[in-house]
Amino acid sequence: MAVTPLVLLTNDDGIYAPGLSALKQEMNNMGGTVIVAPSVECSGVGHGITILDPLRINEIYHNGSFYGFAVNGTPADCVKTAVFSLFEKKPEVIISGINLGPNTGINMFYSGTVSGAAEGAILDIPSFAISLATFSNPDFSYAAKFARMFAEKLINKQIPKGIFLNINIPSLPEAEIKGIKITSQGKAVYREKYDKRKDPFGKKYYWLTGHKIKQKNSLEIDEGALQAGYVSITPLHTDMTNYDFINQLKEWDIN
Amino acid sequence: MAVTPLVLLTNDDGIYAPGLSALKQEMNNMGGTVIVAPSVECSGVGHGITILDPLRINEIYHNGSFYGFAVNGTPADCVKTAVFSLFEKKPEVIISGINLGPNTGINMFYSGTVSGAAEGAILDIPSFAISLATFSNPDFSYAAKFARMFAEKLINKQIPKGIFLNINIPSLPEAEIKGIKITSQGKAVYREKYDKRKDPFGKKYYWLTGHKIKQKNSLEIDEGALQAGYVSITPLHTDMTNYDFINQLKEWDIN
Repeated sequence: MAVTPLVLLTNDDGIYAPGLSALKQEMNNMGGTVIVAPSVECSGVGHGITILDPLRINEIYHNGSFYGFAVNGTPADCVKTAVFSLFEKKPEVIISGINLGPNTGINMFYSGTVSGAAEGAILDIPSFAISLATFSNPDFSYAAKFARMFAEKLINKQIPKGIFLNINIPSLPEAEIKGIKITSQGKAVYREKYDKRKDPFGKKYYWLTGHKIKQKNSLEIDEGALQAGYVSITPLHTDMTNYDFINQLKEWDIN
Repeated sequence: MAVTPLVLLTNDDGIYAPGLSALKQEMNNMGGTVIVAPSVECSGVGHGITILDPLRINEIYHNGSFYGFAVNGTPADCVKTAVFSLFEKKPEVIISGINLGPNTGINMFYSGTVSGAAEGAILDIPSFAISLATFSNPDFSYAAKFARMFAEKLINKQIPKGIFLNINIPSLPEAEIKGIKITSQGKAVYREKYDKRKDPFGKKYYWLTGHKIKQKNSLEIDEGALQAGYVSITPLHTDMTNYDFINQLKEWDIN
C-alpha cells in the first residue's frame, strides 16, 4: 500500500489508544491523514529506535476499513518507517499524540510522544507533540480541534529546521480554558523511588514510582501555564549544546 | 549490598562490554568505582526508561569477585536504580561508556550512552559520556586514561546544574592524537533506509540501515574535531527550549 499523506499521526500510547482515535476522527475532516503508530503502548521509551531487532509493520483495519499501520517499535521508529518505507513522499506535518497525561519539564526526555515530534524535526518535517493533562476520564475533543487548527497553521507558516513544538492542553471544558501561552521547558522536580517487590517465586523486582513536587511556576513555564488553565506551546529543538559553557570549558586546561 | 561509591560507571553496550571493562580497570586505580549497567546491549534506546515492566537487578561476579550490578533496562534505568535503590548516597561523578563507536551530531538523541550521562545531569550529578570512534579492533586504553583524568577534573571543578559532557575519542595511537577541542553538537546528515527482508516463514520484516553523508565540518563541531584527530568535548544540557523562537511564535496569532 503506497500512500502520499498530508499529515502523519503517531503516538506512544499505541495504535489502539483513544487519544489517537479522537485525533484521527478530527483530522479526517481535513483529509490525507495516515496513522503509523506503535503496536502496543510504549510510554517512557524516549527517543529510542530499534536497531538490534527487526521491525514488523501490520495494516490495521477497523470495521472493515483501513485504520493505520502498526509498527512493533517506538514512535521514532514509526516516523522513520513512514518516511523511508511506507510513504512516497514526506508528509507536510507530523502530529504525535494525543497523549494521555501531560508532557512538561524534564519528561520530554522520557516521552515517546515528544520524541515522535523530535524525530520529525530531525527529518526536516514540521512536527508537534500534543498531550492532554489528565490520566483519567479524558475528553480529547478540544485537544483534537486544537491539533487540527495547529496543523493547518504549520502547513501555512515557516518553521526553522530542527525546531518542533510541544503542546499541552489543560483537562478543562473548552469554555474554561483561559488562552494560550508560549512557554519554555520547566524544571519540574520529581521525588522518585523504586518499589521493591517479590514475584510469585519469591524473587525481588523493582518498579519505578514517584510524583512531581508541587512548586510555583510562572506562566512563562510549561507547567505553570498548564496549571493555570492555559494551553502551553513550547518550542524545542534538536541542538542540545550549551553554548554558554563552551568558553568556560576552554579555560579548564584539560590535557 | 549497600555501597557508597565515588564514581558510577554505566554504558549501553551492556555489562559484559570490553569498553566498560577497560574503563573499570583504569578507574579501579582511583578507587570507589561501581558498575551499574544494562544486562544486555541496548544501543539505540535513547533516553528510554522502564515504567511498564518491572526491573531486575543482579550482582555479577568475575573470577569470584564482585564486578557490578546488571539491570534488565536502559542506561537511564541504571542511573536511577543506582541512585534511588543501590547506593547510600549520590556518586560524585557518572561516566557512561566507553562506547564502541562515536556519538556525534544527531546521534545524541538515539544514544543510550549519552542518555546515561543526561540522566546523571537530571539528577544533579556531574556526568559525562565517552565514546571511541571505531566499530572494529578497538583499543580503549587512551580513552580509559582520558576518562579517569576527566573524572578527577569534574570532582574538583564546578559544573552548572543540567549540563553534562559528551566526549568522543579518535581511534588513533595516543601519540597521533592532535589535542582537545571544545565543540558544539554537529548536524551530521544520514542517508537512511529500511532493508526489506523475509523471515524463514516468508513474512516481511524491516531493518534500519544507513550511513553518514560525508561533509566538511569545522573544528568547532564534534564530528569535525574528531575526523581531524582531536578529542571532542561537547557541553550538552537538559533544557531543549529554543528561546529565540518563543517571540516569533507569539506573533503567530494562534487561537
